[in-house]
Amino acid sequence: MSTEVTDGADVSRTLAVFIAGSQYKDIPEPVRHEARRSLLNFFATAFSGCRDPALDIALGSLSEFGAPGDATVIGRPERVDPLSAAFLNAAAANVYDYDDTHLRTVIHPAAPVVPALLALSERRAVTGQQMIHALALGIETECRIGNAISPEHYNRGWHITATCGVFGAAMAVGKALGLDDRRLVWALGTASAQASGSVEALGFMAKSVGVGGAARGGLLAALLAERGFDGPDRPLEGVRGFLNVTGEAPRLEEVTEGLGTRWEALRNIHKPYPCGIVLNAVIDGCLELRASGATPVDAIASITLHGNPLLRHRADRPGVTTGREAQVSAQHAVAVTLLQGRAGLEQFTDAAVNDPAAFALRRRVKLVDDPSRAVPSVRLVVERKDGTNEEVFIEHARGTDQRPLTDDELEEKLRMLAVSKAPDCTEVDPLIEAIWGLEKSPDVSQLLPHARPVG
Amino acid sequence: MSTEVTDGADVSRTLAVFIAGSQYKDIPEPVRHEARRSLLNFFATAFSGCRDPALDIALGSLSEFGAPGDATVIGRPERVDPLSAAFLNAAAANVYDYDDTHLRTVIHPAAPVVPALLALSERRAVTGQQMIHALALGIETECRIGNAISPEHYNRGWHITATCGVFGAAMAVGKALGLDDRRLVWALGTASAQASGSVEALGFMAKSVGVGGAARGGLLAALLAERGFDGPDRPLEGVRGFLNVTGEAPRLEEVTEGLGTRWEALRNIHKPYPCGIVLNAVIDGCLELRASGATPVDAIASITLHGNPLLRHRADRPGVTTGREAQVSAQHAVAVTLLQGRAGLEQFTDAAVNDPAAFALRRRVKLVDDPSRAVPSVRLVVERKDGTNEEVFIEHARGTDQRPLTDDELEEKLRMLAVSKAPDCTEVDPLIEAIWGLEKSPDVSQLLPHARPVG
Repeated sequence: MSTEVTDGADVSRTLAVFIAGSQYKDIPEPVRHEARRSLLNFFATAFSGCRDPALDIALGSLSEFGAPGDATVIGRPERVDPLSAAFLNAAAANVYDYDDTHLRTVIHPAAPVVPALLALSERRAVTGQQMIHALALGIETECRIGNAISPEHYNRGWHITATCGVFGAAMAVGKALGLDDRRLVWALGTASAQASGSVEALGFMAKSVGVGGAARGGLLAALLAERGFDGPDRPLEGVRGFLNVTGEAPRLEEVTEGLGTRWEALRNIHKPYPCGIVLNAVIDGCLELRASGATPVDAIASITLHGNPLLRHRADRPGVTTGREAQVSAQHAVAVTLLQGRAGLEQFTDAAVNDPAAFALRRRVKLVDDPSRAVPSVRLVVERKDGTNEEVFIEHARGTDQRPLTDDELEEKLRMLAVSKAPDCTEVDPLIEAIWGLEKSPDVSQLLPHARPVG
Repeated sequence: MSTEVTDGADVSRTLAVFIAGSQYKDIPEPVRHEARRSLLNFFATAFSGCRDPALDIALGSLSEFGAPGDATVIGRPERVDPLSAAFLNAAAANVYDYDDTHLRTVIHPAAPVVPALLALSERRAVTGQQMIHALALGIETECRIGNAISPEHYNRGWHITATCGVFGAAMAVGKALGLDDRRLVWALGTASAQASGSVEALGFMAKSVGVGGAARGGLLAALLAERGFDGPDRPLEGVRGFLNVTGEAPRLEEVTEGLGTRWEALRNIHKPYPCGIVLNAVIDGCLELRASGATPVDAIASITLHGNPLLRHRADRPGVTTGREAQVSAQHAVAVTLLQGRAGLEQFTDAAVNDPAAFALRRRVKLVDDPSRAVPSVRLVVERKDGTNEEVFIEHARGTDQRPLTDDELEEKLRMLAVSKAPDCTEVDPLIEAIWGLEKSPDVSQLLPHARPVG
């Protein structure tokens, strides 16, 4: 189904009419598959963050001041009310920024949307087709709103996953509830009154409250709209609406142009490594180097990374001391990957950073700007102590549009993160099977027992 | 206690150090009294909004998707969890914009702060002195943050009561919890990640989600900080912090200059009428006209209001059709006050607007700009059908700094709103007595049974 292009004058309503009218058959199979892949990656990253101290604390406060419920906190034995479950599961999925990434906006689309839908499914009937449909439309909503104000919005200091995510969650839940276009516009308005999230808070637990709040707030916005809670006619494009208030010169037409024919879910990638995206190619190159076996670590005199200047701007950090900083250190990524032959969460802990061998190797890594290189590309030149060289060139990093993670690699990511971070959640394989077969599921909430500790 | 002036470079920490170190004896008696007055006015407006359809809907959704609890929803029999109680009571208090107003910023200070403290008191011990102290510091926080970015922040489209209120609630609850300055800075960071609220949503139920969310979010921020949930060092003044992101050229020093010596609570006024503040003098004048008895309504040919141009810009609305619009219509305010001799909530309903006598009288009201008039001042000239005139001049409207509502008038406002909007809450006089005597109360939660329906 396609919708005509508008002049941007009626963005909220055009978007709402599209969502209200969309049918499952209108969603192309590749988009449905990307929705399933995002769902799978979501569970992987929710497992990865489920026992982070931020989650422990949030669960403690919400348990004391909220109230008990029966909704699932992924990877944990505790149960909470559905609104809190949406909050906690979104926070967990985004804690390490290891979730899916819409490259143009740097939105992590699944974290705000999936937990809102899962929480809904524990209280209302949601089929697998409804879930895939709603998730695709939720991703579409948040990424298109983000497109209209990127990159100025994030640059100003808005954590775009949270600020735009609340709209994605609202539209996804609104679709699953079968709201009409009038109620969907109201839900956009109630979402806009809750849109928040701070870039200043990145690197701190406070970040998680923005992302968690986006899932909770979007769920609440749709539930309120269902009961008739009204809002402004133009929450997105109004003079004091979200796009004008949080953007600089919003391109309103980006929200609505090509709705139903061009899908943002197809521009959504999944991260192979738990660190800054600019490091993907660097790590790929180090894995190749190690696999070649031609240059043992002891033989290395220096390693020079020739990359786009963005690599140096974002990741030239030789003197890191914590795992969190190491996630954006090219020097650490090189050292730990060459030493350990992998780059998972264990390679970006404080302990991994403080390993003397990693310390020594980080000092041999240099970065050289090569403006002719695209961001996801890098040339690694290893100088050996004997004066000879080895060189590796990565044109397309894993986890880019050109070289997306395969379905098997995504499954492996889920297995690895569950085993390392939620080892008592042993039903990962049934979970993976259920996600791939979701289209036939009469009840999405049946996924969740597989995501809880067994016994 | 006074704090030295800073250059604005360390605003968050300076504010947090001040709050952490403040002692009850440091709060001047007039500030304490203003805190009690705000609390009294808060209960008045919470009663006024407690059965608004927005509250019914929110309570329905939260009951279905949150979970039951034992915290008080003012004016209603339902009980909810404390976080939801903070949300609902803040929404109720602000529904009609009838709550206290900090004129410089147009923040309604009590709505986000008081409900967070009341909800806390239903789970943790809070004494009357702690409540007054925390409320004064919460008001100080939100109004000073607002001062630093006013009027640009509101003009851009931020509903300042919500966006700044979350910080007030966080600092108030943080003080009541006895947090140290490090944890108070964390709470400011977690508040900043939740700061939201849309001017586009004013006039719709969606507004209430912003104000309710400020109370809930501030309470949550302080509770999380208490358990060690960390945040950035400079959530307010950082490059991507709240003031820079939501202000244009923030005057950082306004947050910290004169802390402990100059109190924003003393600039907080209470509205005598449930409508736009520019109409206060107009209504005062009409009440005087009616009291004089010299010009019966039947004898009126026309009424001309000579006021500051702001009066015309905001309130020249002869053709209103709904109670909500009538709250910002000078024509309706004149007509209904002259006809009924009062200007309470009943005078701004759809029914009052559609009364044929009000319709006829509205058409005889004209507005004339007089730039020499200050905003809270107006000259009313009534031309009688016999060609003679009567004139009334109001220099200072009721509810301004120069002519604040008296304590007796505030009590009367509370009684009137409770009787008309929550008639089964019959313990209003014990509630008033408890508020005036709050300083001696060992347990603030003892106020709440007086604010619930009896029996």
